[in-house]
Parts: sequence; structure tokens; C-alpha cells
Amino acid sequence: GYARVDIDRARRTGDPEVVYGAGKTAEQVVDILRTLHERHPERAVLATRLDAAALDLLAAELPDATLDRVARAATLGPMPTARGTVAIIAAGTSDAPVAAEAALTVRVHGSEAVRIDDVGVAGIHRLLEARERFADADCLIVVAGMEGALPSVVGGLVGIPLVAVPTSVGYGASFGGLAALLGMLNSCAPGVTVVNIDNGYGAGVFAARVARNARER
Amino acid sequence: GYARVDIDRARRTGDPEVVYGAGKTAEQVVDILRTLHERHPERAVLATRLDAAALDLLAAELPDATLDRVARAATLGPMPTARGTVAIIAAGTSDAPVAAEAALTVRVHGSEAVRIDDVGVAGIHRLLEARERFADADCLIVVAGMEGALPSVVGGLVGIPLVAVPTSVGYGASFGGLAALLGMLNSCAPGVTVVNIDNGYGAGVFAARVARNARER
Amino acid sequence: GYARVDIDRARRTGDPEVVYGAGKTAEQVVDILRTLHERHPERAVLATRLDAAALDLLAAELPDATLDRVARAATLGPMPTARGTVAIIAAGTSDAPVAAEAALTVRVHGSEAVRIDDVGVAGIHRLLEARERFADADCLIVVAGMEGALPSVVGGLVGIPLVAVPTSVGYGASFGGLAALLGMLNSCAPGVTVVNIDNGYGAGVFAARVARNARER
Amino acid sequence: GYARVDIDRARRTGDPEVVYGAGKTAEQVVDILRTLHERHPERAVLATRLDAAALDLLAAELPDATLDRVARAATLGPMPTARGTVAIIAAGTSDAPVAAEAALTVRVHGSEAVRIDDVGVAGIHRLLEARERFADADCLIVVAGMEGALPSVVGGLVGIPLVAVPTSVGYGASFGGLAALLGMLNSCAPGVTVVNIDNGYGAGVFAARVARNARER
Amino acid sequence: GYARVDIDRARRTGDPEVVYGAGKTAEQVVDILRTLHERHPERAVLATRLDAAALDLLAAELPDATLDRVARAATLGPMPTARGTVAIIAAGTSDAPVAAEAALTVRVHGSEAVRIDDVGVAGIHRLLEARERFADADCLIVVAGMEGALPSVVGGLVGIPLVAVPTSVGYGASFGGLAALLGMLNSCAPGVTVVNIDNGYGAGVFAARVARNARER
Amino acid sequence: GYARVDIDRARRTGDPEVVYGAGKTAEQVVDILRTLHERHPERAVLATRLDAAALDLLAAELPDATLDRVARAATLGPMPTARGTVAIIAAGTSDAPVAAEAALTVRVHGSEAVRIDDVGVAGIHRLLEARERFADADCLIVVAGMEGALPSVVGGLVGIPLVAVPTSVGYGASFGGLAALLGMLNSCAPGVTVVNIDNGYGAGVFAARVARNARER
Amino acid sequence: GYARVDIDRARRTGDPEVVYGAGKTAEQVVDILRTLHERHPERAVLATRLDAAALDLLAAELPDATLDRVARAATLGPMPTARGTVAIIAAGTSDAPVAAEAALTVRVHGSEAVRIDDVGVAGIHRLLEARERFADADCLIVVAGMEGALPSVVGGLVGIPLVAVPTSVGYGASFGGLAALLGMLNSCAPGVTVVNIDNGYGAGVFAARVARNARER
Amino acid sequence: GYARVDIDRARRTGDPEVVYGAGKTAEQVVDILRTLHERHPERAVLATRLDAAALDLLAAELPDATLDRVARAATLGPMPTARGTVAIIAAGTSDAPVAAEAALTVRVHGSEAVRIDDVGVAGIHRLLEARERFADADCLIVVAGMEGALPSVVGGLVGIPLVAVPTSVGYGASFGGLAALLGMLNSCAPGVTVVNIDNGYGAGVFAARVARNARER
Ligand SMILES: Nc1ncnc2c1ncn2[C@@H]1O[C@H](COP(=O)(O)O)[C@@H](O)[C@H]1O
Ligand SMILES: Nc1ncnc2c1ncn2[C@@H]1O[C@H](COP(=O)(O)O)[C@@H](O)[C@H]1O
Ligand SMILES: Nc1ncnc2c1ncn2[C@@H]1O[C@H](COP(=O)(O)O)[C@@H](O)[C@H]1O
Ligand SMILES: Nc1ncnc2c1ncn2[C@@H]1O[C@H](COP(=O)(O)O)[C@@H](O)[C@H]1O
Ligand SMILES: [Mg+2]
Ligand SMILES: [Mg+2]
Ligand SMILES: [Mg+2]
Ligand SMILES: [Mg+2]
Ligand SMILES: [Mg+2]
Ligand SMILES: [Mg+2]
Ligand SMILES: [Mg+2]
Ligand SMILES: [Mg+2]
Repeated sequence: GYARVDIDRARRTGDPEVVYGAGKTAEQVVDILRTLHERHPERAVLATRLDAAALDLLAAELPDATLDRVARAATLGPMPTARGTVAIIAAGTSDAPVAAEAALTVRVHGSEAVRIDDVGVAGIHRLLEARERFADADCLIVVAGMEGALPSVVGGLVGIPLVAVPTSVGYGASFGGLAALLGMLNSCAPGVTVVNIDNGYGAGVFAARVARNARER
Repeated sequence: GYARVDIDRARRTGDPEVVYGAGKTAEQVVDILRTLHERHPERAVLATRLDAAALDLLAAELPDATLDRVARAATLGPMPTARGTVAIIAAGTSDAPVAAEAALTVRVHGSEAVRIDDVGVAGIHRLLEARERFADADCLIVVAGMEGALPSVVGGLVGIPLVAVPTSVGYGASFGGLAALLGMLNSCAPGVTVVNIDNGYGAGVFAARVARNARER
Repeated sequence: GYARVDIDRARRTGDPEVVYGAGKTAEQVVDILRTLHERHPERAVLATRLDAAALDLLAAELPDATLDRVARAATLGPMPTARGTVAIIAAGTSDAPVAAEAALTVRVHGSEAVRIDDVGVAGIHRLLEARERFADADCLIVVAGMEGALPSVVGGLVGIPLVAVPTSVGYGASFGGLAALLGMLNSCAPGVTVVNIDNGYGAGVFAARVARNARER
Repeated sequence: GYARVDIDRARRTGDPEVVYGAGKTAEQVVDILRTLHERHPERAVLATRLDAAALDLLAAELPDATLDRVARAATLGPMPTARGTVAIIAAGTSDAPVAAEAALTVRVHGSEAVRIDDVGVAGIHRLLEARERFADADCLIVVAGMEGALPSVVGGLVGIPLVAVPTSVGYGASFGGLAALLGMLNSCAPGVTVVNIDNGYGAGVFAARVARNARER
Repeated sequence: GYARVDIDRARRTGDPEVVYGAGKTAEQVVDILRTLHERHPERAVLATRLDAAALDLLAAELPDATLDRVARAATLGPMPTARGTVAIIAAGTSDAPVAAEAALTVRVHGSEAVRIDDVGVAGIHRLLEARERFADADCLIVVAGMEGALPSVVGGLVGIPLVAVPTSVGYGASFGGLAALLGMLNSCAPGVTVVNIDNGYGAGVFAARVARNARER
Repeated sequence: GYARVDIDRARRTGDPEVVYGAGKTAEQVVDILRTLHERHPERAVLATRLDAAALDLLAAELPDATLDRVARAATLGPMPTARGTVAIIAAGTSDAPVAAEAALTVRVHGSEAVRIDDVGVAGIHRLLEARERFADADCLIVVAGMEGALPSVVGGLVGIPLVAVPTSVGYGASFGGLAALLGMLNSCAPGVTVVNIDNGYGAGVFAARVARNARER
Repeated sequence: GYARVDIDRARRTGDPEVVYGAGKTAEQVVDILRTLHERHPERAVLATRLDAAALDLLAAELPDATLDRVARAATLGPMPTARGTVAIIAAGTSDAPVAAEAALTVRVHGSEAVRIDDVGVAGIHRLLEARERFADADCLIVVAGMEGALPSVVGGLVGIPLVAVPTSVGYGASFGGLAALLGMLNSCAPGVTVVNIDNGYGAGVFAARVARNARER
Repeated sequence: GYARVDIDRARRTGDPEVVYGAGKTAEQVVDILRTLHERHPERAVLATRLDAAALDLLAAELPDATLDRVARAATLGPMPTARGTVAIIAAGTSDAPVAAEAALTVRVHGSEAVRIDDVGVAGIHRLLEARERFADADCLIVVAGMEGALPSVVGGLVGIPLVAVPTSVGYGASFGGLAALLGMLNSCAPGVTVVNIDNGYGAGVFAARVARNARER
């Protein structure tokens, strides 16, 4: 009734549609996720931006669903075999929901997800010490709020394709993530690309497409 | 004297530094490009954002340099063997300089560049007819000004990693490319990433890194 | 008491004043709608932007009123005979309230309203398949949030007068509909006009004026 | 070479493509206008946003072209028979170039264009006295800079479809036409639609489509 | 304790300080208003921006206070004799709270306040009919939201000093009153001055100073 | 031909129209000023925003005109007898052109203009020492760029009606006068009103209307 | 688990990490503050931006903590010996929370904090009278909302290093503190530096570093 | 005549006024600098923001002046004895003019200036290697354009008072330095303060005041 799911998307682009929970009732979320699962029973389907009510109803109505309450997301169906690796590097504790959404999306879209948290640029040694944990990834997702400086530093350390995700973490002149967004768009490190504020999902789809198509190392 | 070139960058990231010509005198451009070439004689080095004076002095002083006057760029040294393919799709005639900068950057950074021009969304059949020319690429660069709608349509047709480049083409409420930038950041097609306005260079570095590391088809 | 209704408007412009419910109490809405109906008993009068309380009080106090809870609007009195047709094309499920407000306004202002939903540009085939459903309309209303790209594509398919309505659907750099608004104002398709964010009402008045005055096909 | 003209557009939308002169050399303008004319010899083709050099070269190379130096535009080929009437109402002397571009575009796209100038809202009697000159038009184009208030007043006088064109006339907090644009988008008169700042062309295409399809009066 | 009232202000500027209720507790409001009244028992003191709690506590604790619930304000002490007249002209019903705050402030600061409501520019005849009611005032306050066009029309009808107050009435691209503010700052009528969005108080102080010092008519 | 002068304005508002020179040729300026003078030979008419060419042609063609090259303005005809006094207080040397435009406008519109320059808030003693020079004025015009703080300080010293003029003096985050404009709109001194950036003319018209109507002291 | 505290920070920068309470649960705040205290038992550690729940749980769980409910902050552990003095000058009553956060931060970071409140520029004599209370400080923090003019005046009175803190106090065109921020960035007083809107903490850290390293007077 | 120099400033704040050359003629610059020098013959006075004409006239008219063409500044009179040290750290080659203006200002205002250039965050090792060159400074000035990330990294390495200067270096979404400015205001490193875009002078005054008052090391 209320939505015409783009059933054909998986054929055209390799990835099925995803439930975007914002502005949908819990019932709608459950309903669409169930429909998507019926169309694609062989692979996990994903619902994002779920509020507590939607997560609770999912738990009750679809007991086979797997919930990620930090990511505010859920999956239904078996995860695909992973090809390639995406490292998700996050600046601060408050960026965790976005990093979690990105990691889960990467996994659903067919790659391995490695998390490296709390390595903000004001304590640069933490990032340098973690370098070997991301230096062999096929794609990087770098998540940061406030001034959004982390992608520039990471992008100067390695030549791996890097997707930056600005978050709305901050106050005052952060203007809801605008400062981080502008910072990332103006990165002096070459080859940094950017997605919308808090869009862990978009970064995850992109990075999984890069990683799962990368040659073996 | 006037600049400390980051000589070590190729070792860390796989790609040597590039001369960013904006705000530099023609003499400085020639000088830095020559220095970079001496450090990396085995592979092409690149200079971008060159005005007419810099291009003319390069032609006179470095006759081995190859000039691309549409891209406002130049290279010196042998192109690397290409691995993988990047398709550069541009909406309108006025986007040509940015598309050309992207294509040259892709080539210098080690991938094949395929150009598809003048396929703006107001004549959508032109894009649909060109689909087979980009459906096998390893990465896409989509260049558009004004409303910046092209990446959303392309991103719905294929599942290839897609980097969108907003251009400053437009007037009035385009606010120097801001409208196209915001449009691309809000793309409803999943997996679209974005670079700064007119930043064909950044998109090219990124896309070449994806494509040259992609598995053979 | 609290408002001086512009009673004369129907004589000057052909259309009676409409109740704009935002910021009014339920009692005020009922009161003004009743007054307008008394002045114009022969034709439907309209109230928009009604919250649940206003809709409920209307249902209780004016049982002859017709409620549209998706559009958050109500009418009172007989609909006029329809002349001409307006097609309302919407990009996503979340745009439904704005599309519904536009459709109801069109009908109240004397034209037929045809709805075409969920044809966003990331699945362009859905729009192309629906082309014949809007190709004979006298005016188009195209509703979209996020990047607001749909009017450019529709405007390249047909030469029908097209009014674009940006919606506040989106997050982050959509800035409450600003991205969609700017996108539509910069449309590369000729002859696209734009109304305020979420202004289905304004688009409906305009389109009905065009359609009801169009020559027969 | 440098541009792929959308030859098919006239078949799809009823109107041939138009030369947008901004950013093109005088030679390119002459060349594309000649090509368009060859494809559509039976009807006038249009070039807009021409600088002095382009206008002069057109005069020399295409003596059959008709130049409008206020509109900064030119046409080639016979004007179509006019159906319907568009009144173009402008607030101040400085808005003349935009009003002229709109009027010429209306005429090229098949309707009659009537000009009413210098009727800004700070001398409202001038507008009221001119009312009968626009009260029978099939569509209105209202052009204003600075605060952009004129469409609200006109839209309260008549019920004719009204397209508002903000201009960049003003200084300081007009921010290049932004004040007028926002004013028009927020018009309290119902049924006002808006195009980009200084976009007389877009308003003209739209209004001609409305007017040439209007029933006879 | 929590505030150092500027006791000396009346001596320097002729007007005592005023309680700005926003962000203050009901107790603080009552306390400061009582203190101000003790310092200035011979003339009314004013409290603005009061929420329901503050208004209710004032009614209970200071029974001599006069409450204006539309203006969200209160006074304590005898009104001064009025000299001169200020006409407050408001565009729409929703602007009433701001117009009421302005009117009460005018009265407290020593002039007569005349209200003219609901004369928005989309029904210009209502304003023209009301002209004689404001043509003899010593100062005008013009209150409008949305596009803020009313001051330009009024400013073209009379040569009286005119203070424009933009209101936050509107939605979407009104951006909380920004559209009205910019419209008023760019008014093509000479001699229009502007205060902050919703600042009926500031307009009232200013206008009363002009009117009470005007020569007799 | 090119402009319809609002001849009737003096009757309606007491002040004749003024030539706004921006965007007009020197010939147009001379022509319109001459026309205005013929209509109003008994009182000075004014032309503002004149570039060097217009000023030079005025000097040659209308030798009776009086030029003010700092204000970039000119008058023609006898100054009216002055009633009332306006003090124009400017923060810095760079604000001189705006202060001069305001002063000349005040004089042309019938009041005395007193200039107080270079009393910016970073040397507050200069302002305090000048207090007696403006404490008896009937209206104040306060001109400042950069942070625009001067009106707040002046507005706390006296209770005279105060019009603030932000100027575009500054760089970086002054954003062409936006910082000063916002500062003045948010002044914590009660009764400060504001005009557009650099709009000495508008402030002058307003202040002269206040001052010439003020009661004798 | 949920956070990797930057334990090493005190060694690198001389100051331990601080708990930023926004977006953290009361339990997390208590937990991290306890951990920080264990690492640095010899000196006070600080938690800021605490809501009522966090403050209450701190009072219950860590009875040795000292709460500052105006500053919305808490400390645990003995205050360091103070070296040098920082004067915190605030414009209005509503700025108190930010001034309190700054003062507490100064004290925790090792300097004396002196408060001077309610000395806004609209009553300049209050500031001038307080001059001797801040003229001997080693660093100044100046806190103001609305137009943010206070730092310019203070910066013209003394040559002490001055950190300005814009606050979000205001409405309408204050845009959440943007007006004050821009005002302070454009201060005409030399040597004014600025921190983020409402960032009393950042100003406090900075000022304490200046003051505790200042030579004795 | 054209300027009232704030002669008293040195007595109040310890530092004489400085010539701000923007918008002044070469003659004015020479004249004011000479006047300032006469008042303060015992210490260097400074002129900034000088164009080529002003620098050339200074060289001709005041042969004792010292010119710094990179900083676009000049001094006249003997430099004061330096107390304390300020390190000026700059991200890229293009930031040199701002760094030079800051360094010269520091020196004129009584401290030693140490320059560290071209240590942008995309090559973080360069900054880490330079650490010992700034770790003993009394105050830091960090200059960066584009994303403005450098202050966050530096601020995490040392606890020295740090003033950040955003520059207008960049393009597109850098919006003339806005991106760098916002990045610095949102720095996650504690104790970073910020000045206006390109304001090397303001940073220099501030830093010199901190450094010259610092205790000996
Ligand atoms: N967290 C997310 N952020 C942005 N887009 C999303 C997100 N989750 C899903 N989407 C997109 O939203 C589409 C579904 O939108 P809808 O039809 O409104 O449910 C999906 O196909 C995705 O392209
Ligand atoms: N067209 C371009 N757009 C953005 N960044 C560029 C461009 N060309 C070069 N760069 C970057 O600028 C750096 C050189 O900057 P610079 O040291 O100022 O010459 C290169 O290493 C690239 O990272
Ligand atoms: N409605 C209002 N809008 C703006 N400013 C106001 C308003 N009411 C009072 N004020 C100002 O706020 C001052 C009192 O502020 P406070 O000391 O914070 O109570 C008064 O002296 C007025 O200048
Ligand atoms: N310096 C100025 N700034 C703003 N408006 C002005 C200025 N000078 C004249 N005007 C206005 O512009 C009108 C003339 O505009 P125009 O018909 O375009 O010449 C005058 O009647 C004034 O209202
Ligand atoms: Mg942390
Ligand atoms: Mg084309
Ligand atoms: Mg959908
Ligand atoms: Mg005119
Ligand atoms: Mg009404
Ligand atoms: Mg000065
Ligand atoms: Mg106070
Ligand atoms: Mg470099």
C-alpha cells in the first residue's frame, strides 16, 4: 500500500533496496522488511534509522531478525560471504552510532568490517599506533564530527580509497555537522570523498562495493 | 625555497605529490614540476590549475611536458601502464574542464579513462543509450553543475562505485556550485560519494585507486 | 474576532480564501471554516496544515466536512465540476503528505488530480514506464525531497507546464529542504517553476488555474 | 565537436534547444545557433546571455539574425504565430534586461508578450492603474529585485497563473538576489511560482507553454 | 542576587529598564518587576516574553499588575500621559503577538498606540481603505512575516517615519523570519528601518521616542 | 524613455524621487537629474551612487550641480531650510563615504546634519568625550562596519531615536557587512533600528523625517 | 568499554582529559569521572555539560564530588594551587552559565578566577567602574550574547590577552549565537581571540594556560 | 584630516595604533605611518595590508622604513627588545603571507618569532619531526586554510596557548576561508582560540602579549 519497493534494484545494481526507517511507523518497518526478506530470502536485508518502538516490534514480530541497537538498525536473513575488508575509523565515542551503521552496512553488502574507535586527531599517537590495523584494508571509512579533521590525517598516511563521514556531533558553530562536512570536502589529502552528515549507510554501501571487487592481496 | 615538497608521499601513499598551480607564479610551477620530475623520472608527474602564463612557460621551458589546455593541466614523464577503467560521465558542455582534469588525473594515477559527455538528465535517453559504455567500468566519476542530478540517475542504473563532482556551472541560486554540491550529498541513490566543487583532481585520484586495485573482469 | 477574512478574494481572483491551520487553535479552525462555508455554500472550501486536534474537532463539529488525514486537510461543501487534469508525480513514500495536499487543492480549485507515486530518479525505469499516465495532463506538479532531481528528468520528457515542490524529507545537508529547493531552482530542464518547501497548496492553486483554463484536448 | 545538441528535444517537449551563451566563445555561439537553425529552419531559434563580442559576431556572420541588445539575446528564423498572451510586469528600470529576456523567450515559444514596466510597489497606484493591461492575459511574469514584493501584490489582484522572477538588482543584504528569491517563495498570495534569479528565459518558456495552450477568451 | 538592574537607565535615556522574561523563572520575573516598580512607582514598568507560568505567578503575586496574554507581557504602575500617536499596522492574524507587544511598549513608553490588523499585501484594497487611519500618525510600526512586503507598500503611501518588524511567521524557505527580514532591509521605499525578527519591543521603544517628541499637528 | 520617474512621490510622501546611479550610464544620470530638477526647481534633488564618469559628466553638463565626491553624490537646486538636527556618528575612517551619503541626504531632506567621526568602540573615551555634541540631536545615525558595536554603546548613553547603518568595511568573516548587520539587529540597547548595509541614503531620509517633525527644544 | 580515555594527555599537554557530558548517560558520566579521578587522584578532574540526571547521580554516587549547578559541571579531587589570575567579564544575566563554566575550568586548570557580571555595553559606565577589578589580571575572558560587542570595548581599555566567548543568548537574527560569534571575530580591538559559541570550557583552558605561566606582577 | 589616530592607545593598552592599509591611498599610508612614527620614535610602528603602490611609495618617501613584501607590510623605527617566543606554524606554501604578517606583528609587539612552514596534516610526520622547534615556545600561532585541521593536531601535542588563524586559501566549498574558520572553532583539542580569516595581525598582537608577559623558562 504505502510504498512501492524498488524490487528490481538488486538486478540493476547488485544490492537490494534497504528500509529507511525515519518517518515510518514500527508497523511499516516490520512490514517492508518482511516483504524485502521474502523477495531476497538467500541474503540479509537491512533496515536503518529505527527508533526504539520499531526495534522492539521487530524483536517481537520477526524473532529471526538481528538487532544492532547502537547502529539503530536490524537485518533479516543470512549474511553474505565476505570478500575484501573495510576499516571503519572513528574519531570519538559519540560517533559510535554512525560508525556502527557503516560497519553493519558493509557487512550486509558483502565485505568484512573492522572497527577502530576513539582515535581523534587531538591524540594523534593513538591513530599512528593503530596504523597497521587499517593499512591493509581495501577501503577506509573515516567518521568524525566537530572539525572533521581525521580524514586528512589518515589520507596522508595511506593511499587506500577513503570515504569520509561527517557526523552531527558538536555544538554552536558546528551547525549540525556542517563544519565537519566542509572540513572533509576541503581536505588537503588527495583522494578523500565525502557522504552526507551521519550517513554511515551510504558510506557502507560505497565501501563494500569497492572492497568486494578488489583484487586479493 | 618557497615550498617544501612532500617527497615522501609516494612511499606512504603510492602516489607522488602534484603541483597545485593556483596562486603560484609561472616560474614556480615550472620549477616545482621540474623538481618533482627529477625525483620521479620513471612516472608522469602532474600540474593542475594552470593559467595561460604557466602553460605557455611550461611549453617553452619544458618541451617534453604534455599540455592539456581544456583541463588547464600538464604532465611530465611517461604515463604508467593502465590497470582498470574509470568512466567519466559529464552532464553539460560547460563541465568539460572539470571532466578533463579528472580524466587526466585518472590516467596519471594509473588507470584507463573513458569520457562520456553531454548526457544531462533533461535528455535522459542520451544517458540510457550510453549505459553500455560505462556499465563495465571499475569506478565512475559523474560531473555536473546546476542542480547536480546526474549522479542520482546513474547511481540507480549500476552498482559501480560512483564519485560525484559538483561544478560551479550555473548562476543565481546555484551559489557557485553549492546547489549541485548539496544535491549530490543528498542523493537518493545509495553509495554516491562526493568531492569539493570543481575538484576533478580529487575525484581522479580516488577513482584511479579504486580501479587499479580492482580484480580483472 | 481574531481574523479579518478576505471575503472579496473570490471575486478578484476566482478562488475563495483558504484556512491555513498552522498556529491556530482547533476552535479557530472550525470557526473560520464554518464562516467561509457560509459565504461560499455552493463550492467546497478548504483547510490545510491541520493537526490531529483540529481534525478531530472538525469531525465532531462539522460532520459534513471531508477529512484527508494524509494531507492533514479538510473540505466543506460540494466539489466543483473538474475542468482539465493535473498529474502529481512524487519521488518517495515520505513525500506523500505534500503530494496529497497538492492533489486535494487541485480538486478544490476545479481540476482533476491524478497521482503517480514513488517514482524517484534512482529507479528511473519506474518513471519512464509511468510516462503515458502524465503525458496528456494540462499541468504537472512534481514533488521530491532530498536532492530534488525529479523535476529535471520529468521536464526533459514532456513540454507540459511543470511546478516543482521541494519537500523537507531528508537529513543532514538537506537543511530542511534547502537542498531540494536549490536543486529545483537550478533545474537544467527549461520551464520548471518552483514553490516553497512543502507547499503543496501553492502548487495546487497554480496548477488548477493553468489546467482549468487549458483548451480541450 | 564541443557540444552534443539535444536535437530530439523539440519532438519530446515541443520546443527546440536554446543556446545558453554564458561561458561560450563568440565563435561557439554563432556555430551552434547556425546548426540549430539548420535543424529547425521553419521556426525561430534563440540564443541568450550573449556578451557584446557574441552579439557583434552574430551581426557580422548571421545577418538574418535579429538582435535584442537589452535582453542580450538573438533569434534566427521566422517567429511562430502567437497563441495566447503573456504579460510581463517589471518593478524597476534596472530589471529591464531580465524582463526583455522573458518577453523575447515568450515570443519565440509561441505566445504574445505584453510589457508593463516600472510599476514597483513603492508607488502602488502605478500598478493599480495598469491593472486592465494585464487582467486578460493568460499568464503573468512578474520581475522584481531588492525585496521582490511585486508578485504578492499582483497575485492578490488577479487569479491568473503567475511566474515570479527575482533579479540580482540590489546591494548589501540583497545578497545577489537572494532576498528577492526568498520573498517570492514566501509570497502570501496563493499560486505564485518562482524561477531562478535573473532567469527570464525559464519564466518565458513556462509562461508560453501555459498561454499557447489556454482556451480562447 | 542574580541580576544587576541598570537603575540609572531612566536618567540617561529617559526610559527605565524592562524585564526580558525569556530564560528567567517565574519567581525571577516577579522579583525583578517588583524591584523596578519600587524604583519607579510613578510610572508603569514592563515585563515581556513571559510564559504562562510567569503570567500566572504575576497574577497571583502582584494583583495590581495588568496582563496582556496576547502580547505575553505585563505592566505594573500607572501609564504615562500619552504624547503623539504610533500606528501599528500588521499583515496577518498570526502576527498579532508581535503587534500587541509593540503596541503595549509604545503605550508604556509614553505615546498613543493605534492598531490596524490583517491588511496583508495580497488584498491591497484593505490597506488602501485603512490609509486615513494611519496617515496622521507620528510614527508607523509595520509588522509582517512570510515575504515581509507590507512596509514597502506602506512606505510608498506616506512619508511618516516607518519601523518594520519582521516576524517568524512562515515555514520552509522563510527560515524563521529571515525572508521577511531581508525583504524589509531591501525595501525599495525610502526611509524604512528594521528591527530584529519578532522584536515588537524594540520597535515600540523607538517609535514612542519619535512620536512623543513630535511637534503637535 | 528608459525610466518612468515617480513624479507623484513628493505629493504622497513629502519627498521627491532620487536618482539611484548604480547600473545607470552617466548620460542617464544627467538626464534624469535634469528632469527631476525641472519638476522640482524650488528644492534640491539628489543623485547617489555615482561613479567617476557620472560625476565628471554632471560637472560638465550641469555646472549648477554641487558634487560630493566622498559621498559619491550630487545635488541640483537650492537646499531647503533646515528644521531639526541629525547627528551622524561614524566608527572609523573607512566608513566616511557612507556617513557622507547619510549627511547629504539628511540636508537635502530638510534637516541639519552634524558629523562626528572616528569614534569607534575600541577607544571608547573618544565617544564619551563627544557625547555633548550629539546629546541634543533630534535623531542619530550611527555608522559602523566590522563588528558594528557602536550603536549599542551610543544607544545606552542617550534616549534619542537611533538609526544604525552597517557598512561593508571589513574582511573575512565580516562577509561584506553581514557581521555588522547582525550585530546591529541584535543590539542589547533598546530602540535601535537598522537599514541595509551601506545604505546611508535610507538612514538619511528616515532621520530627516524624524528630525524635521520634532518639537523645538 | 564505551570510551578510550586519552590517559596520556596530561603528560603531553599538562592537563588531564575532561568528561564532556553531552550525549552521555548519567551512568557513563559517573563511570568516566571516577576513572579519571583514579588516574589523577592528586588533582581535581572535571565534568561539564551535565544535565540534571547526571548531576543527581553524581551527588549520590560520588559524594566527594563538588557540583556547580549554574555551570552544569562537577569536579572531583583537590583543586590545584592557583597561579596567576583570570578575570571573567560577562555582559548579561543570561550569560551566567557560560561564565560559570569558564570560571570553574580556570580554577581546575590552575589559576584564580575573578567574576565580573552584568556589565553589558548598553550601560557602559558599569564596565568603566569595574575597570580596576580586571586591569591587573593575567588574562581576560569576555562572555556576551546578542551582538557580542563587549570584547571590543574591553579590548580597547586594556592590553591584556583577551579570549571572547559568544553565547547563544538572543533570538531571531542572533541565529543561535552566530551574530555574537561574527561580531567577536570582526572586533576592531586588536588582539581579541574567539572560541566556539557557549564554549566556556575552551576559553577557561586557554586562559589558565596563559595566566599560570605569566610572570609575577 | 582624514583620520583621527587613537594617540592614546599605547598608554591604555601598551601597544600603539597600527596602519591598516586596505582602502587607503598610498599617500594616506605614508602620511599616517610618518605621523605614528613621530609620536612613537623610540619603537617600531607598523603598516599592514599594503598594496604594491603603497609599498613602492613607502620605499621612496620613507627610506628608513623596512618592507616585508611577502607580509605586505612595513615598519618604521627600531624593533623593541624581544621577550618570550612565539612559534608560527603554517600548513601550506600558500599560507605564507598570513604567517609572515603574524611573525612581523609579533616582532613589532615585543616578542621573538620562530617560523615553521609547510607542515600540513596530510604529511603528519613533518609536523612530528618539527615538534621540538615549537615545544618550548610561550605561545603558538597556527595558520591553515582549506579544512583548517592543523590546530587540532598541534593542540594535542603540547599544552602551550594556541591561536589559530584560518586563511582564505582553497576553493569551492572553502567559501573564502569559512570551512577553515568553522573547523578551528570546533577543534576537539582543548584551549584553541581563533581569529578572523587571514588575520595574522590580530593573532600576532595577542600572541606577543602572552609571550612577553610569560615567566622565564
Ligand atoms: N540510513 C540511511 N541513510 C540514507 N539513505 C538510506 C538509509 N537507509 C536506507 N536508505 C535509502 O533509502 C531507500 C529507501 O527509502 P524509502 O523508500 O523511503 O524507504 C533505500 O533504498 C536506500 O537507498
Ligand atoms: N586541482 C587540485 N585540486 C585540489 N587539490 C589539488 C589539486 N592539484 C593538486 N592538489 C593538491 O595540492 C597539493 C600541492 O599543494 P601545494 O603544496 O600548495 O602545491 C598536492 O599534493 C595535491 O594534494
Ligand atoms: N521583548 C524584548 N526583546 C528584546 N529585548 C528586550 C525585550 N524586553 C526587554 N528587553 C531588553 O532586555 C533588557 C533586560 O535584560 P535582562 O537584564 O536580561 O533582563 C531590557 O532593558 C531591554 O533592553
Ligand atoms: N543610495 C541609495 N540606496 C538605496 N536606494 C536609493 C539610493 N538612492 C536612491 N534610492 C532609491 O531608488 C529610487 C530610484 O530608483 P530608480 O528608479 O531605479 O532610479 C529612489 O526613489 C530611492 O527610493
Ligand atoms: Mg575521547
Ligand atoms: Mg547541452
Ligand atoms: Mg522508495
Ligand atoms: Mg524607478
Ligand atoms: Mg488573513
Ligand atoms: Mg581609526
Ligand atoms: Mg541586565
Ligand atoms: Mg605543500
